[in-house]
Order: sequence, then C-alpha cells, then structure tokens
Amino acid sequence: MKQISGGVCAAKGFRANGIRCGIRANHTDKDLALVVSDVMCSAAAIYTTNLVKGAPIAVTKENIADGKAQAIIVNSGNANTCNADGPEIARQMCALTADALGLNPKDIVIGSTGVIGQKLSITPIQNGMAELVAGLRTDGNEDAVEAIMTTDTRKKEAAMEFELSGHTCRIGGMAKGSGMIHPNMATTLIFITTDAAVSAEMLQKALSADVKTSFNMLSIDGDTSTNDTLAILANGLAGNPEISAEGEDYETFRQALHAVTTDLCRKMAADGEGATKMLECRVTHAPDEAAAQTVAKSVICSSLLKAAMFGADANWGRVLCAIGYAGVPLDVDRIEVRFESKKGNILVCENGAGVPFSEEKAKEILLEKEIYILIDLHQGESGATAWGCDLTYDYVKINGDYRT
Amino acid sequence: MKQISGGVCAAKGFRANGIRCGIRANHTDKDLALVVSDVMCSAAAIYTTNLVKGAPIAVTKENIADGKAQAIIVNSGNANTCNADGPEIARQMCALTADALGLNPKDIVIGSTGVIGQKLSITPIQNGMAELVAGLRTDGNEDAVEAIMTTDTRKKEAAMEFELSGHTCRIGGMAKGSGMIHPNMATTLIFITTDAAVSAEMLQKALSADVKTSFNMLSIDGDTSTNDTLAILANGLAGNPEISAEGEDYETFRQALHAVTTDLCRKMAADGEGATKMLECRVTHAPDEAAAQTVAKSVICSSLLKAAMFGADANWGRVLCAIGYAGVPLDVDRIEVRFESKKGNILVCENGAGVPFSEEKAKEILLEKEIYILIDLHQGESGATAWGCDLTYDYVKINGDYRT
Repeated sequence: MKQISGGVCAAKGFRANGIRCGIRANHTDKDLALVVSDVMCSAAAIYTTNLVKGAPIAVTKENIADGKAQAIIVNSGNANTCNADGPEIARQMCALTADALGLNPKDIVIGSTGVIGQKLSITPIQNGMAELVAGLRTDGNEDAVEAIMTTDTRKKEAAMEFELSGHTCRIGGMAKGSGMIHPNMATTLIFITTDAAVSAEMLQKALSADVKTSFNMLSIDGDTSTNDTLAILANGLAGNPEISAEGEDYETFRQALHAVTTDLCRKMAADGEGATKMLECRVTHAPDEAAAQTVAKSVICSSLLKAAMFGADANWGRVLCAIGYAGVPLDVDRIEVRFESKKGNILVCENGAGVPFSEEKAKEILLEKEIYILIDLHQGESGATAWGCDLTYDYVKINGDYRT
Repeated sequence: MKQISGGVCAAKGFRANGIRCGIRANHTDKDLALVVSDVMCSAAAIYTTNLVKGAPIAVTKENIADGKAQAIIVNSGNANTCNADGPEIARQMCALTADALGLNPKDIVIGSTGVIGQKLSITPIQNGMAELVAGLRTDGNEDAVEAIMTTDTRKKEAAMEFELSGHTCRIGGMAKGSGMIHPNMATTLIFITTDAAVSAEMLQKALSADVKTSFNMLSIDGDTSTNDTLAILANGLAGNPEISAEGEDYETFRQALHAVTTDLCRKMAADGEGATKMLECRVTHAPDEAAAQTVAKSVICSSLLKAAMFGADANWGRVLCAIGYAGVPLDVDRIEVRFESKKGNILVCENGAGVPFSEEKAKEILLEKEIYILIDLHQGESGATAWGCDLTYDYVKINGDYRT
C-alpha cells in the first residue's frame, strides 16, 4: 500500500471538475463540484445524526437506496437546509446533472454546504452546468475540492494505491470542513472514490465500521452539522474479483480506506477553523475501546485544553479534568500524561499527579504545529485516537459574523 | 419576598472576612476567605461529578456527614487537586481554622480554587489565619467574596428576605467562577447562608432539587470542574419553627433559595470568562422537562452560537442546529425561534424554517448585554431555562496561558 496523489481522480475511470457558478453574490470562489465515473458504481454513505437535516441528505438517501450511483454533484455557499423548497431544489440539481451527463437522476449523490435557512436558487447551477460538465477531466480533482470549500483554508485530499488479488487498485477522497463535528454551520462533506470492485453491501459495511475510528473521532468545536455526508463510489474498473463478503480482500480494502479517511481527518483537524495546531490524542491501556474513545474525544473537545494548546501552555490539569468528566468509570490515580511533538516527548503527570518537568522544554514541544497528547490509563488493553485543533482568536473571528 | 444586600452576611449571625495571605507569589489579590456562624448550623452540599476531585471535596464530605457545620474556609490561587498531599493540607486548613475559632475541625466546610496539580503550601494560610479571624465582621461579605475570585471580574453575591410562619428570615450567597460547568480549571464555588431553621435533611433535599434548575443549567465552556462545591449553612437564628418536612414553609424556603441561586447564575453567566453578553435560553412547550432542559443546554453550549452572539449575528440556523443534535426526539418542523433583549423581540424562525426579518432590528437587539433566546417547540407543556455567555477573543486570551 502506498500513498499517491489525485484525490477523487486517483481511481481509474473517475473525472471531476469545479467551477464558480455564482451561488453567493459578491463571492469569487468556486462553488460547484462534479465527480463522475465512466461506469455505474456501487455506492454507500453515512449522514449526520442531527435531527435538522439538509435537504440533499434525504435526496441522496433515496437515490442510493438501490446501492448504485455514478456521479456526485456538490455546491458550497448554501446548505439548502431549513428551506421549505429544499427537497425540490435538490431534486432539480440532480435532474440537471443527470440531463447534462446522460444519466438517470436517481444515480446522483448530492451535497450542499454553506449557510442554513437561506433559499438556494437553482438558476446559477442551471446556468453553470454546461461549463461544469465540459470541463470534466481525469485531473480535475483539485478544482472539485476547491469548489466544496467554505471557510477551509486548504484543499483536503488523500489517496492510496493497494493490491487486491493481484490487481492494483486505487482509492482517493476529498473533504471539506474542519470536522465531522460541525465546523461552521457549513458542514463537513467527504467523498471517496475507488476503482476496486466492492458490492454496495460490503461498501456500506466498510464505511460504517471505518467511521467509528476516523471521522467520528474528529472534533473541531462540538457542533454536529446538519449536512454531514460521507459517500463512497466504487466503479470496479481495477478488475479485481468483487468483494462481496468478509475475507482477506475486504481487510485490505478496509486498511486502504482507513489510510485515506485518517489522512483526511488529520488534514481537517489541522485546518479546523482558526486552528494553528493539529491535536492528536492517543489513549492507551483503557478498559475497553468505547472507554478509550470517550476519553480521547473528551480531551480533544475541551475548550480549556484547546485554548491552552493555542498558548503552548502545558496545563496538564485540564487533560486530567477532561478525563474526569468524560463519564467513564476509571481509576484516576493510575493516569499518565505526556505531550509530544517532533521536538520531543515530556512526561507531565504520573499516577494522576503532577511530576516536575521543564516548562521550557514543554513550551518548545507545544510550539510545534502537530501536538500529540498521550494518555496511558494503565488499566486495560484498549486504545483510541481522536483528532482536533486548538481554540484561537480566529475561531471567534470567523464565527462571530459568518453570514455576512 | 424581597431582594436585600449583604451576600453571605445577609442572614443573622454570620460574619465573614477575606484577606491576602500570599498563596501565589507575584499576585496581590485577596486569596483567603472565612465565613462563620455564631452558632452551629445544619449543613448540606453538592459537589462536582468529575472523577478527578479536589482534595477539599473529600474533607468537606467527611466533615458534614453529620449534617452540621459552623464555618467555611476557602482559598483561591490553588485548587489543591491532583496533589499527593492534598487531603492532608485540606485537613490542616480545617484544623488551623477550627483552632483560631475555638471550633471542632469536623465543623468546617472547606473549598479551594485555582490551578490544578501545584502543591498548596500551608504556610501562608497558617500565617494569615490570625488576621483573617480578627477581621471577621457582619459586613465582611464583600471581602470574603473578593478573596474567592480567580478570573472573575465582578463580585457575585445575592440575598433575599422572606417570611416563614411569621418570622422574618434571610438567605444570601456568594459565588466565584463563571459556571458550575467549569470555567477555567479554577472551579466554581458557591456558599449560601441562611438564618432560617432547616434540618440538615431538608436542607440537602432543597439544595439537590434546586440545583437541577439553577447551577446545572449554567454553562460557560462545557468543562466540568474538579472542585465545584455548593454548600449551604442554616443557623436557625431567625427563630422560625424548624423545617423538618415538606409543606408550606419548605416551599417558601425553596422559592427564596431559588431566587438566590438563579440570581447568582445570571451573574456568573454575565461574568463568564471573556464574556460581553449574558445569554438566557428559554425553552417552552417541550414534551417534558428533561427534554426542555437538554435543548436549552445544547443551545447555550454551542460554540458556534456563542460566537455568533459575540458578533451580534442573528444566525438562527445555529440555534436549529444545536436543537437538532441535542439528542431529544422532536418534530423540528414546529420549532419557533425569537431573539429578545431590552431593545425588543424578533421572530427569526417559524415551523422550523426561516422567516423574513429585519437584519437591522436583529442587530440592534443582539448588541445588548442581556440576550434571551426564546425557543417555542410547540409540542408539549414543559419548559426550562439555561444560562451562558458569548464566546469571545478574551476567552481564548484568558485561557491560552492561564498558569503564568
């Protein structure tokens, strides 16, 4: 397995494009993305658990109920959520896309991201569709990922090459947003494509399993979006025997998928709104995996710890505090905490109490861009990893007046 | 029932004082507070649910296990938490206080607030005790409340006068911190005194019931402290027949207690770290009280909404989003949202969708210091109120480097 480039176009038979069609007046950014497979794909998806859901979610659910899809249309600049005509607009977007591509509207995955509660006009999308389709190409991934960005400052792509029964396969993806845990009412969208042949059922199984240790372990600000969608298309053009049951190929595919999703997680964490640092919390020796995950997420979600990390302040008491209120029964007197970065590793707490450490060395470690918070609970054999970012002035600035 | 002044000294027979004994070098603020009753009191308390608990909590629990206490000693500047010698230091603090007052160490309530994981030296407390006790007086409440402040910018006191069976009674309290939901690893402490005669059992019952609709509905940043303590002493000097069962007097006492606790809640919310605005979220017509509370807290805890309020941005989509992820089954299509302040009231969402409104009027309303977020769920008869504050640059600044 090796890392490759190409994002959603890394896999054979996928083309993409992204343009500005003009969804928001006075904005010059690209706002409409399209990803298309040359042939029909197996499809699977995961959606936000928020009760308030964007209209595109219901439409995507309907469309992939048969386990098939061939294209993904996504707009930024408007979430198409809490709008009375939302479902109708989402269906029109699918119809326009299908018409332009010669596909069935039922084979389209759709996503929208941006402000909630403002009407989404179909006009700019209709007007831009011809240009969008005309520009589709096998290296269009960068335009596509750019078109789904909102407050993102960087394009987030990942891709891997791997072998299934002697056939070289590729899997790649693009993501927008700063967390599955809703970054800015603008939602997180993740689209993954692969040329591996995988049945819709096994694709859904792999995705549902993967998300537990990837996107569900990512938090920027604790707000779960209304529009989160993670969708995957598998077109089978790699020629491998279709994965239709568990086994060695399924495990290999799972590993490749996980490499892509965790790469995207780290990139989303590093680009969290206003973030200056990526935080990775690794919990080890927990009584069970659920406990490890709960503790890791509690630490990564603590506003106080996030602010301390922004200030490069080795305030480990805030780590202990967040472990303590996580709601997991633990012997706190066994807990060990270390901070780590490429500048080194420092022990700050042992047996639940502070140990003397060099504040200077701690500062040097915490001034880096990627910080690892290592928690050894010393009470079991399970572990978990969660990702997040620091809490900064810019987070407040970005979200203090997002709509204007 | 009427509002009065005097805080913890409002009730008959209570004296207080606060001094600087020097717990933190290079700090000039008062850091040691004492509240004493002329006679033995019934006592009750509520503590943090964090597994990591400050040493004073275990000691207070032991000391009031018999339902009795006569004095409260509190230091700021150090939480005495995650220290191996923490319990010993806390017991020494009680012993020194009891010695100086001629009381039994078992009749002392103790609290500590400040940084976690740094050793608390008994020396400055020992050295300051004589001065602290010598200065006790019936108008010492302001010195006491000042001595328990950490990042608080304002003294938070409240007091009420009320009648029980023809006897005039008083109840008053002081609070530090910006929320029971842990403001700054420095914890929230609330101490209430009353001259009403109430049995320890009924005192605990009243406190445990009250907290559900007062301090448990207050959030500043979602971090539950390690040292939260809410303690109440009732010395009976008002001369009323002791409340030892439910009934009219108990209900009246509950109302007076609630007036004090909610007044303190609003003051703590308004003084949340870095806050420029107090937010009060009122949920009405919920299926049941638990649902109403969960929704109100979810909204008040949303970082995105808090940032929007800082920016006076009527981004109601964030209110809907926070309702949607609260985990309560609801028909979101019935929800109505209004923003209110002393400048007026504006409808922004009806039937779960946006309505046209004047952005100018909304801005005028949201530029005020006290904002009410009114959510009518239109699906039941229950309600709840939660308090919080906006998320600002100063929150990040205060917490980016708290220890230095």
